[in-house]
Amino acid sequence: MLIIGERINGQFKKIRKAIDDRDEKPMIEEALSQVKAGANALDINTGPGLDNPEEVMKWMIETVQDATDVVIVVDTPLPKTMEAGLGVCKRTPVINSTTAEKVRMGTLFPIAHEYDCNIIGLAIDERGVARETEAKVELGLNMIMNAMEYDVPSDHLYLDPVVLPIGAAQDQLPFAIEAARTFKSLSDPQPNTIVGLSNVSSSTKQRSILNRVYLAMLMANGLDAAIMDPNDADLMNVLKTAEVLLNKKLYADGYLRA
Amino acid sequence: MLIIGERINGQFKKIRKAIDDRDEKPMIEEALSQVKAGANALDINTGPGLDNPEEVMKWMIETVQDATDVVIVVDTPLPKTMEAGLGVCKRTPVINSTTAEKVRMGTLFPIAHEYDCNIIGLAIDERGVARETEAKVELGLNMIMNAMEYDVPSDHLYLDPVVLPIGAAQDQLPFAIEAARTFKSLSDPQPNTIVGLSNVSSSTKQRSILNRVYLAMLMANGLDAAIMDPNDADLMNVLKTAEVLLNKKLYADGYLRA
Repeated sequence: MLIIGERINGQFKKIRKAIDDRDEKPMIEEALSQVKAGANALDINTGPGLDNPEEVMKWMIETVQDATDVVIVVDTPLPKTMEAGLGVCKRTPVINSTTAEKVRMGTLFPIAHEYDCNIIGLAIDERGVARETEAKVELGLNMIMNAMEYDVPSDHLYLDPVVLPIGAAQDQLPFAIEAARTFKSLSDPQPNTIVGLSNVSSSTKQRSILNRVYLAMLMANGLDAAIMDPNDADLMNVLKTAEVLLNKKLYADGYLRA
Repeated sequence: MLIIGERINGQFKKIRKAIDDRDEKPMIEEALSQVKAGANALDINTGPGLDNPEEVMKWMIETVQDATDVVIVVDTPLPKTMEAGLGVCKRTPVINSTTAEKVRMGTLFPIAHEYDCNIIGLAIDERGVARETEAKVELGLNMIMNAMEYDVPSDHLYLDPVVLPIGAAQDQLPFAIEAARTFKSLSDPQPNTIVGLSNVSSSTKQRSILNRVYLAMLMANGLDAAIMDPNDADLMNVLKTAEVLLNKKLYADGYLRA
């Protein structure tokens, strides 16, 4: 399971200040805290409103890489900033993200090919977020086909059914589970599947249990990766428990401490 | 979701003593405690070693029915005790259980037909517990076909993929999830699906979290019923959360208190 920490993002005040001051320390602290809690990948996002996002992205990634050993998920809407970030990654990175919009796929799949890296594909197209299972699966298949045209292998894709907040779109949550499972059957080699987990509980009063239960439900339907909060210890315990129940990690009485 | 409480069983000392003394009070207390916690069905089992199991089963069911309003799950290996129990049930009961063994199906499906009730069917045959997904599904289909011959409609079946303890059969736990999902596609009308949940964590040190996560994983794959401990409040919170995430109950901020 790829556990992608989500807090190295210029939209958080602490990180924005670290960027403005070119202060490595808060960035490294945040990275180490997430890795110690179990993250094996970190999402890096400069946040908006910078004069020099390419230079900032490079600095952020290099700073994190000097302190940790994890997969870098380069998170930016700007193609040049994306390429600047990918160019300094030491291990195979992940592009966050394309959608099934023609223009974005035409920009980002060539980049994924050039840097021989992985890429997240969101079940969104020109009409917006795909709501029902069939629509999500259709966009997943569309992205697989387009990736092939740009020589991006299907197992370099992380297909995301797109999880919306329960308060806004409760009816879509079962569709996202079913779409994740169906994505795995769309190609050989299988694409990977991913969600932005915390979205499900956005603006609710019971954030942690909604995240926990939804994670278990998705993992029972083929989820390979999640952008999530590794510092939520209860959530990480559910993840470890799901891994032993799926027989992906060997069970032992002390598995939660592993 | 049918939530079947499991503690009204002569194998528990307190219940055995109540049976021997024909003391209704401990039985009613146990029943009310489980119903208050959220059980909408109760498994009734006399336990072994009684001279008069038919009379005891009737007394137990009548006692529980005088105090509560729930579905009765009649749990005995003895066909005459089963019939005695079914005969006093006020609401449509559930037979617990047949297997896919020819002799048992030939005994229990006619009883299910005669009493026009539901029946649990375990993925076990003369060779023992079916281990892999395909074998479990084959026995499920076998039970549906045999039920039809005895005029038991497929939606009166509760098919159980059989959950074994993680310490003994970790590799089978994903198969049980997949079998539960596949059972739902075997007939129209769909059969129901059920597990004996606590089995998964038998003899482990982390019982509650294993039960909780496995329940969420099964519910995301079509589980309709579980024999479980409704007095485990954390487990019940997971169940309620899974129901809102599956859009089966309407989400509201206070859903855990509902």
